[in-house]
Amino acid sequence: MAKRLNDVDPEFSSAFDSMLAEKREVSADVDAVVRDIIDHVRVEGDVALVDYSRRFDEIDLTATGLEITSAEVDQAVETVETQTPDALEALRIAHDRIEAHHRRQLPESRTYKDAAGVILGDRWTAVDSVGLYVPGGLASYPSSVLMSAVPAKVAGVKRIVMVVPAPRGAINPLVLAAARMAGVSEIYRVGGAQAVAALAYGTKTIAPVVKIVGPGNAYVAAAKRQVFGVVGIDSIAGPSEVLVIADANNDPEWIAADLLAQAEHDTAAQSILMTDDAAFADKVEAAVAQQLATLPRGNIAGESWNVFGAIIVLRSLDQAPALADRIAAEHLEIATANADELAERINNAGAIFIGAHTPEVIGDYVAGSNHVLPTARSARFSSGLGVFDFMKRTSILKLDAAALEELGPTAMTLARSEGLEGHRRSVELRLGGSR
Amino acid sequence: MAKRLNDVDPEFSSAFDSMLAEKREVSADVDAVVRDIIDHVRVEGDVALVDYSRRFDEIDLTATGLEITSAEVDQAVETVETQTPDALEALRIAHDRIEAHHRRQLPESRTYKDAAGVILGDRWTAVDSVGLYVPGGLASYPSSVLMSAVPAKVAGVKRIVMVVPAPRGAINPLVLAAARMAGVSEIYRVGGAQAVAALAYGTKTIAPVVKIVGPGNAYVAAAKRQVFGVVGIDSIAGPSEVLVIADANNDPEWIAADLLAQAEHDTAAQSILMTDDAAFADKVEAAVAQQLATLPRGNIAGESWNVFGAIIVLRSLDQAPALADRIAAEHLEIATANADELAERINNAGAIFIGAHTPEVIGDYVAGSNHVLPTARSARFSSGLGVFDFMKRTSILKLDAAALEELGPTAMTLARSEGLEGHRRSVELRLGGSR
Repeated sequence: MAKRLNDVDPEFSSAFDSMLAEKREVSADVDAVVRDIIDHVRVEGDVALVDYSRRFDEIDLTATGLEITSAEVDQAVETVETQTPDALEALRIAHDRIEAHHRRQLPESRTYKDAAGVILGDRWTAVDSVGLYVPGGLASYPSSVLMSAVPAKVAGVKRIVMVVPAPRGAINPLVLAAARMAGVSEIYRVGGAQAVAALAYGTKTIAPVVKIVGPGNAYVAAAKRQVFGVVGIDSIAGPSEVLVIADANNDPEWIAADLLAQAEHDTAAQSILMTDDAAFADKVEAAVAQQLATLPRGNIAGESWNVFGAIIVLRSLDQAPALADRIAAEHLEIATANADELAERINNAGAIFIGAHTPEVIGDYVAGSNHVLPTARSARFSSGLGVFDFMKRTSILKLDAAALEELGPTAMTLARSEGLEGHRRSVELRLGGSR
Repeated sequence: MAKRLNDVDPEFSSAFDSMLAEKREVSADVDAVVRDIIDHVRVEGDVALVDYSRRFDEIDLTATGLEITSAEVDQAVETVETQTPDALEALRIAHDRIEAHHRRQLPESRTYKDAAGVILGDRWTAVDSVGLYVPGGLASYPSSVLMSAVPAKVAGVKRIVMVVPAPRGAINPLVLAAARMAGVSEIYRVGGAQAVAALAYGTKTIAPVVKIVGPGNAYVAAAKRQVFGVVGIDSIAGPSEVLVIADANNDPEWIAADLLAQAEHDTAAQSILMTDDAAFADKVEAAVAQQLATLPRGNIAGESWNVFGAIIVLRSLDQAPALADRIAAEHLEIATANADELAERINNAGAIFIGAHTPEVIGDYVAGSNHVLPTARSARFSSGLGVFDFMKRTSILKLDAAALEELGPTAMTLARSEGLEGHRRSVELRLGGSR
């Protein structure tokens, strides 16, 4: 049973604070272990990858090879075409929609000349190469492959490398099919901190990349943090979460299903309902209990809901925006009469799903928007994955003699005030040394 | 004397690789120390800040107060108005140009409805609050205050907090004047890892912020890395660097001055000249030696030039783009006949300065573009500071019943293929449960 918070309760504010402060993941201190792994990969290269894969994934890479060859991917695609053609077709629809949406995100390079005659520009270009981390085992989702590979492709990244652990040799063929569809250039069957190290520093088999993105376990997260600087990284992903703001004019079954869709990801996931109607909250809670009974991943979802689930009952949904901004949910569903208006008033959310016919799940798969979104309240300062993550902006400046004549003296004054005479001279010489 | 690389030399490729691999900073392992400092600040709050400031900055914050009050800033502005009115005026010009340029960077929120009837949007909003780290002592530059505070203001950040260490109580009044000019909301005289910890976790006096930006020493860098996730951070700054691509049709004095302007920052700074004319390279080298003799920071610049400086002589500048992309310089000056064309062919650079009348120093101060740029080859994957760093993008989705009818079945197929029955149900219930 989820915790219940009620804003008429004098303890509401402290209960809300506690909820925000709740740690949903034990952040095991794996830094030292990860540092060793990274060092080992830097020194030993492929040999270290073979060692760790034998130890952690129970696979002999000297037998299988580190790279998943194009022929193996062909085979996987064939398997999928035969066994689950509907899934392949659905993946294709999702791919095309994700591609279409992300194309619209492409930033425009711009250059202009200002009144002083200075040409200023911001030029966007793709990073040269990127490494996509894809978790193995149960959490190896083909949809996530599309969500990271497609924006990279749209951004114009030339070399897209995917790493995916193959515990006991197993790889989801649909993951390989998704990689093929999205234009992934190379795939290696290796995971964990060792895969991150290989992507950052390179080995004989795996050439280094410029940026690493994608979610992983605590070891992967720690490794990404440690190689940050050597390569770029995206944000560190935590357990998934949803905040559903719903008034009484909703089918409790629908809302319950949305809460459980999030909860079934992980026992550490969090589903929160915010409503202005206690009776509606009761109905949703009853529906959750009922749906849990028949949900295949009911034990996971149940634990998530019981431990981290929450129902927040407010006197008025007018207070919802301020509280939602503090929660800064990865996913925010708004199913109220004034959903659009409420959405406008909320600043912090990874993605907002407006109206009762926009379940979050649509965003997970086929809407076209990205499902890699900021977790653990980081929507306060970061954004979902997009083409921006695979591009960088170069500043362009161009002055002629006249423009330099106009701006130079100001630069010289500032250089002197900062005690940087060499800076001053670099301008002075060009102005004839006369000032 | 800078090292000389020549592409006719059979060793060129390995010499170039060595240059790229060169560590210019001893990355002291300060992680454990920083972890202690952060923990201490989290537990003890202001008391810890007082302790560390006494120890590291030789200042008694219980006497001076932690906050630099508005009255103190008034006083600093008055001092500057009296003593260096020209510097204040120059700072104002710089401020206005930086503001004008960054306004053009503001991303537009966009929403559209696609053929399936799905409304998709990307909505940009400012982060609520930001902490600006400003180094103290010699490297306390008012221009850098503008470069981080102005984009934050333009982005729409409501609360802009600045921290700056005050070694033995000293603060550069021009830094405070710049903060006032740029609209900084609060200033605290504290630096180091303790300041970063206070900004991330908050103390009684300093409310926590959402994102921390700005350069600092190894302790500050390590602290930013450790609090990443709790708050957002910008990239980790390393020593400054310039790559100048110049043909023989340049005044060697100008080019020498540009190399030294970079070198005078720090003994770990790096200045590289790339040219297709060995005789011109000799002239530049001679000019560097001559200018060094009279440069106030000549010992710093000289050490930087002798240890890390490099002259790369190529048979043809046609090879420059590929090499420049590998160097991925923070600052790239191109002073050649075909400078525009060459600039187009280079992807990796923090900022490009085109033509002989665009010394990098103009970008440091008054061009309007940002001078906080990616160092240590990180221009391969990251961008200079800009309004984007102070904003985040929220994905917006809205479907009506018809759009859900169209997309829902595809989402259900994918959910099932990923073993997420709860996801499937969330859509199925809305489609009448009939599929």
